[in-house]
Amino acid sequence: MRRLRLTLEYDGAPFRGFQRQPGQSTVQGELERRLSLLCGHPVEVTGAGRTDTGVHALGQVVHFDTTGRIPAERVARAANSLGSALVVRHVEETSAEFHARYSAVRRTYHYYVSRFQPSPFLAPYVLYEPRLREDAAERWERALATLRGTHDFSAFAAAGSSGPATRTIFGSRVPERGGLLRMELTADGFLRSMVRIITGWLVEIGRGERAPEALEGALQGTTPGEVATAPPHGLFLARVEYPDRYPDLSEAHAPRDWWPGCF
Amino acid sequence: MRRLRLTLEYDGAPFRGFQRQPGQSTVQGELERRLSLLCGHPVEVTGAGRTDTGVHALGQVVHFDTTGRIPAERVARAANSLGSALVVRHVEETSAEFHARYSAVRRTYHYYVSRFQPSPFLAPYVLYEPRLREDAAERWERALATLRGTHDFSAFAAAGSSGPATRTIFGSRVPERGGLLRMELTADGFLRSMVRIITGWLVEIGRGERAPEALEGALQGTTPGEVATAPPHGLFLARVEYPDRYPDLSEAHAPRDWWPGCF
Repeated sequence: MRRLRLTLEYDGAPFRGFQRQPGQSTVQGELERRLSLLCGHPVEVTGAGRTDTGVHALGQVVHFDTTGRIPAERVARAANSLGSALVVRHVEETSAEFHARYSAVRRTYHYYVSRFQPSPFLAPYVLYEPRLREDAAERWERALATLRGTHDFSAFAAAGSSGPATRTIFGSRVPERGGLLRMELTADGFLRSMVRIITGWLVEIGRGERAPEALEGALQGTTPGEVATAPPHGLFLARVEYPDRYPDLSEAHAPRDWWPGCF
Repeated sequence: MRRLRLTLEYDGAPFRGFQRQPGQSTVQGELERRLSLLCGHPVEVTGAGRTDTGVHALGQVVHFDTTGRIPAERVARAANSLGSALVVRHVEETSAEFHARYSAVRRTYHYYVSRFQPSPFLAPYVLYEPRLREDAAERWERALATLRGTHDFSAFAAAGSSGPATRTIFGSRVPERGGLLRMELTADGFLRSMVRIITGWLVEIGRGERAPEALEGALQGTTPGEVATAPPHGLFLARVEYPDRYPDLSEAHAPRDWWPGCF
């Protein structure tokens, strides 16, 4: 039995999220369909994270097992001949101990917000928020800095979530370019809708309706009120990182300094 | 009567081309619908160029006349509240002598071709051509240089075209970035499908199936054979230029150094 590791890019719009669902087009379902055809036996795919409906990925990682002999370098080409909204960027043989979800140590999400009317080519991937103040990026950086470290993030979990809510945020950044802001957040893991709920707070902070300190208060449950969860179309699962014994070669051959990796 | 000049961006995919057609969603039709609502009287829009079905625009220019008093700066905001595939980038009052089509002196088109599998976010705007040689950009620049100046371009017109075919090509460039090539062509005007037919020749030249000199031969009718017209989805009407008495202010407020203006 061989285990293969794939790095994927996808546009979330045409999919009903990552997770396989009967009668729905999902990333996992579509990929399993392509890989089963390719390998000649039913394939089960395990992903690093279950992106919600409408959320995009630049660097989702999955693994699957096969008894087939198809060379790793042929998998990407064959899988990519079937459509363009889901692209296999990199494939490599990996060890049986590698697990796309449980071996992952850091996950990075990006959320795009524009102060100006975005072009028709960016609009499907950006939240348009004309009321953002000019110093919004700076306010966001101050607010996000208060989240770093290990905390109980249940205040930022989708309603109805259960299970342990302790996560560690390693870092955040908010580069800006021509009125387009990119919120970057890296953690060991995220609760369901966590990035979109944090972005909801940031939008109000960016408009000046709340102070940057409101985010830390929201984490601790001392900021009153609620915010609207930011819509999924601005969100990208940008990168998943693994320990050094599972080297990530996925950047090797792709032109990554391109939009949305244009910063 | 006032004349207003608009600069537009649009994604060509959802439209049946620029030109108004009964029962079809076209750029002109959609814009006339929005502007008529806004002005309170039927509006007729005149464009600098009639882009075909599937062709995009970064800087299409149109004009229309109105008896209404809506301030120019409100037209963009109001027109843009109706959808995101067509964005009004800039609006200004202009003189009655300005004509979007007849006053234009230079038009620039861009065509994107990628040697690598494009990301799902670029794929709708790029021709994927894995067989391009590594020196394709250089071969294209050599080939395109032979077209500069004033010629009869009827060899590059769509079948069934009629009318005068003399045009002047002012310049061409082929910047490349990470395996993505952008063919840029500037002329006083273009025949129907001319850029896509030229791109068809360039694809064969870029693969090494023809020499760069084949393009000049095609212009003169001495290169044997035919080529496939390149598909519309890689083509952008990038810019329309007017004499100095009609200054172009459209770059003023938009973040233009962004993809597809990312070069």
